[in-house]
Amino acid sequence: MSMKKISSQLIKVAKGDRPADLLLKNVQVVNVFSGEIHDGDVAIWDQFVVGFGDYEAKEVMDLNGLYLAPGFVDGHIHVESAMVEIPQFARAVVPRGTTSVVADPHEIANVMGYDGIRYILEASKYNPLNVFIMLPSCVPATPLETSGSELRAFDIYPFFNEKWVLGLAEVMNYPGLLQCEPELMDKLKISHSKRIDGHAPGLTGKGLCAYAASGVASDHECTDVEEAREKLRMGLHIMIREGTAAKNLEALLPLISNENSHRCFFVTDDRHPADILEQGHMDHVIRRAIELGLSPITAIQMGTLNAARYFMLNEHGAVAPGYFADLVAFESLTKIDVKKVFKNGKLVAENGKAIWSLPDRPRMFLRGSVNIKWLEGDEFQVPARRNKIQVINLQRGQLITKKSVEPAKIEDGLVVSDVERDIIKTVVIERHQASGKMGFGFVKGFGLREGAIASTIAHDSHNIIVIGTSDEDIMTAVIQLNKLGGGLIIAKDGRVIADLALPVAGLMSRKSLEEVNRQLKAMIEIAHLLGVKATDPFMTLSFLALPVIPELKLTDLGLVDVGLFKHVDLFVE
Amino acid sequence: MSMKKISSQLIKVAKGDRPADLLLKNVQVVNVFSGEIHDGDVAIWDQFVVGFGDYEAKEVMDLNGLYLAPGFVDGHIHVESAMVEIPQFARAVVPRGTTSVVADPHEIANVMGYDGIRYILEASKYNPLNVFIMLPSCVPATPLETSGSELRAFDIYPFFNEKWVLGLAEVMNYPGLLQCEPELMDKLKISHSKRIDGHAPGLTGKGLCAYAASGVASDHECTDVEEAREKLRMGLHIMIREGTAAKNLEALLPLISNENSHRCFFVTDDRHPADILEQGHMDHVIRRAIELGLSPITAIQMGTLNAARYFMLNEHGAVAPGYFADLVAFESLTKIDVKKVFKNGKLVAENGKAIWSLPDRPRMFLRGSVNIKWLEGDEFQVPARRNKIQVINLQRGQLITKKSVEPAKIEDGLVVSDVERDIIKTVVIERHQASGKMGFGFVKGFGLREGAIASTIAHDSHNIIVIGTSDEDIMTAVIQLNKLGGGLIIAKDGRVIADLALPVAGLMSRKSLEEVNRQLKAMIEIAHLLGVKATDPFMTLSFLALPVIPELKLTDLGLVDVGLFKHVDLFVE
Repeated sequence: MSMKKISSQLIKVAKGDRPADLLLKNVQVVNVFSGEIHDGDVAIWDQFVVGFGDYEAKEVMDLNGLYLAPGFVDGHIHVESAMVEIPQFARAVVPRGTTSVVADPHEIANVMGYDGIRYILEASKYNPLNVFIMLPSCVPATPLETSGSELRAFDIYPFFNEKWVLGLAEVMNYPGLLQCEPELMDKLKISHSKRIDGHAPGLTGKGLCAYAASGVASDHECTDVEEAREKLRMGLHIMIREGTAAKNLEALLPLISNENSHRCFFVTDDRHPADILEQGHMDHVIRRAIELGLSPITAIQMGTLNAARYFMLNEHGAVAPGYFADLVAFESLTKIDVKKVFKNGKLVAENGKAIWSLPDRPRMFLRGSVNIKWLEGDEFQVPARRNKIQVINLQRGQLITKKSVEPAKIEDGLVVSDVERDIIKTVVIERHQASGKMGFGFVKGFGLREGAIASTIAHDSHNIIVIGTSDEDIMTAVIQLNKLGGGLIIAKDGRVIADLALPVAGLMSRKSLEEVNRQLKAMIEIAHLLGVKATDPFMTLSFLALPVIPELKLTDLGLVDVGLFKHVDLFVE
Repeated sequence: MSMKKISSQLIKVAKGDRPADLLLKNVQVVNVFSGEIHDGDVAIWDQFVVGFGDYEAKEVMDLNGLYLAPGFVDGHIHVESAMVEIPQFARAVVPRGTTSVVADPHEIANVMGYDGIRYILEASKYNPLNVFIMLPSCVPATPLETSGSELRAFDIYPFFNEKWVLGLAEVMNYPGLLQCEPELMDKLKISHSKRIDGHAPGLTGKGLCAYAASGVASDHECTDVEEAREKLRMGLHIMIREGTAAKNLEALLPLISNENSHRCFFVTDDRHPADILEQGHMDHVIRRAIELGLSPITAIQMGTLNAARYFMLNEHGAVAPGYFADLVAFESLTKIDVKKVFKNGKLVAENGKAIWSLPDRPRMFLRGSVNIKWLEGDEFQVPARRNKIQVINLQRGQLITKKSVEPAKIEDGLVVSDVERDIIKTVVIERHQASGKMGFGFVKGFGLREGAIASTIAHDSHNIIVIGTSDEDIMTAVIQLNKLGGGLIIAKDGRVIADLALPVAGLMSRKSLEEVNRQLKAMIEIAHLLGVKATDPFMTLSFLALPVIPELKLTDLGLVDVGLFKHVDLFVE
């Protein structure tokens, strides 16, 4: 695929017949083609690098020996995890050297469907960040929950006309693929001339053969070298993930050899506000890979060109004539201390600061997403049908849970939170169709001693998840969440004591990443004061609703035994 | 681009639910993704590899530890140079491991235009060889000669609908590109979402920047490491050429590093019958690279996957599930001694022998291509306007010529061949439009002592070129060439003493490569007996008409001073 138009102007400037727009003097080019660092001057015209050498230019910038590398490319990210809109996301990651991301708008699509994808495409315009899109393949993610949309092959098909759309996003439903589910086969068929990304943790042997044979061309779920090596051999490109929820870089780095690095590249999958601000984005991944022993050239290839080649973006991911002038200048080849970032030939960030203005254009229409059935107050009661319940056991620092059977704490015939034993009532409330559907569970190990915590971020359908010591606080939290139009809430003694509004699909704020991070940190602080043990209580909460990670989870349709992949009763014999 | 259809069947077989068609047991897979050799069994269904492992299959073939590599890919070839039709070419190269070629039908297009390209596309069907096409960008090659066609952007545009067409072939007219000639710009514009191949010997600095910036993405004309390194840095993929007329492998191999080999691959450009039969095709290039010190894995990557990736053929160039089962089995990882070749999953060659039948289908219509003005016999006279002439001096073993000024041998007011001084009359006769145009020159160093030698292979317009000691023999040769419908002729004493018919555009025989080689060798033998010094007299003759290689050349429009890039008079002061 080509994003650019060939023009005579470009050729004339490159040939030196007309002045370039900008000459970057005294740089050390990180040449991802030749695998060298070479001194030179780099000429830019319009959006493109036009040449190496002594060009006449309207503006000359002396970079005094800084390294000049291609802008970094994140090959797979759910931008919603940063909890801000794209323009704010760009302001946070571009100054750190990221100039392209390949986004899977899986989260917003599960809430808003077609409109959500449309919104991401639109919101990506006019920012100095390429947001390429992979079309979500799993909306809804499972049949065990109620999502805000169902995207079938014919729903996503029109998007293939968009030049920013590169293919079909992670096919998580590998059991469905292996069963040749017709709907999924249709999605593969309409995508097969583009890229189809994979997501198949632990898949091996013939199942993996079938997955690869279907046209899936990558995987970002490898957690050890053996798994990655088998997938690599099968022809899957290995996306080495180093994000917030999952970090696989150190485990996978021993896989990389001179002969195979060209099939591997870096992705973050998801990256939360604090991590972006404190560690960085792709600069962090590249830096970390170098710290762990990878050669800087290879690490930079894996953070730039290799992803571009995978996605057949033939004018991205390198510093070369005719390539988009998406460039990163840094001082240290090991620290990747980004000093300047150029996007489409324009300086857009210096010393970690964005120096462009937010695009001035009308806010896009986006409908409200918190659509719940009117609550009377008694909906959260759990009548005790037996006196033993299945309880979700949190595991410190992990996304997986365990299950245990516990005696229920029963008051007036109702099962209630047992603060003493840290077994707290948790409810998932359908918020897309106002169906009134609610799933009830009890969670052990969260640590909440008073109040309620609620969120509209609850993977993957992003219904409302609320955990609370009393029905009153649960009610307060949910009602306020509705009034807020989505977000995070902490309620105590019948009133909201902290909140973060996420009006965009209940997933994203309209504020800056710094502001969101500040509010989020304050809320986490308060949650910890209320006894919550998890480092990030909201992330823990959000994954409680994800019915594809073992062992016991909760959706709006009830408890899910992930091993059985079906709903189970709260009460047991 | 994807050549395959996703099917449920494929997934079911890969998963092991249904039997495969063929299981290749006990192979050592040359895995071009992981850069490893690994033991295994490889299952095939329909046209595809479906998996590694112990599969149930309708047929099991024990390969007893043979290496199994992807079928070899020639990234750039003019198949016309083999002087046979595609089905015969396939019979010669497939048993040597080549399963894909990317052909630029430049020669036949210069003779037959649109029909020539159409013919190559059609003739490529039903053979166990993928013939991908790059559309000729230079028809005619220069304005200094008369070609059989003029292909403008709108002439080649319809071919982009063909799934076998991968882009625009070598843009040899780099001066035109650097001048932004509108017609060439149009060709670049219609091709820019596919691949555009380059051909720019010696181009450097800003000219090269402009060439790369225009969208040209490769070059196969590098002759030394410095040239190749500069082009590589600019983003051009380096096609390392090892063919019949040009051999650059040894000179370029020091370029290859672990960090850049993925941007380089092997091509032959042209390969004459004897070389194919005696040395091989891509197997020879890979073998030679290994002999010269390249690691076998890297050499095989450069002869398979790297070309496939450049052309964005995402299901070719590797042994992996979902990839076309184009496979080569050999015993020695250094000798590349091909034992078996599989194409689209079928065994098609064993121990160097093709085991498929030639496709049984109607011969394609192709008009005759030798269309000359009726000759009366006196057309070859060269009246002596002065007594000094510019003479083309052949250089032993080189395609370039030198020029010298010599006294003309004049008889009855006509300049005639001077056998004593080895200055022999040479004529290029326009053969496409019967215009009667003829260019006259005299060639020193060819060695012909009697008779005439004529050919319809004369780069790039492929007019008739004839060299002869007498007008009578010249006349005989040309008339017989016309009767033959094109080919090679040796005449002596007024009659033909040897010929090779090349009825397909005057470039290709309808016989097998072995038969063509046999006839050609006999003719070369006879030419040598007549005094000709060049190892391959017909190749020498054919390049005499190519007005882009210095120093003095001859077209149907007259002598060409290549340095001046214009016609010059035969006679000088």
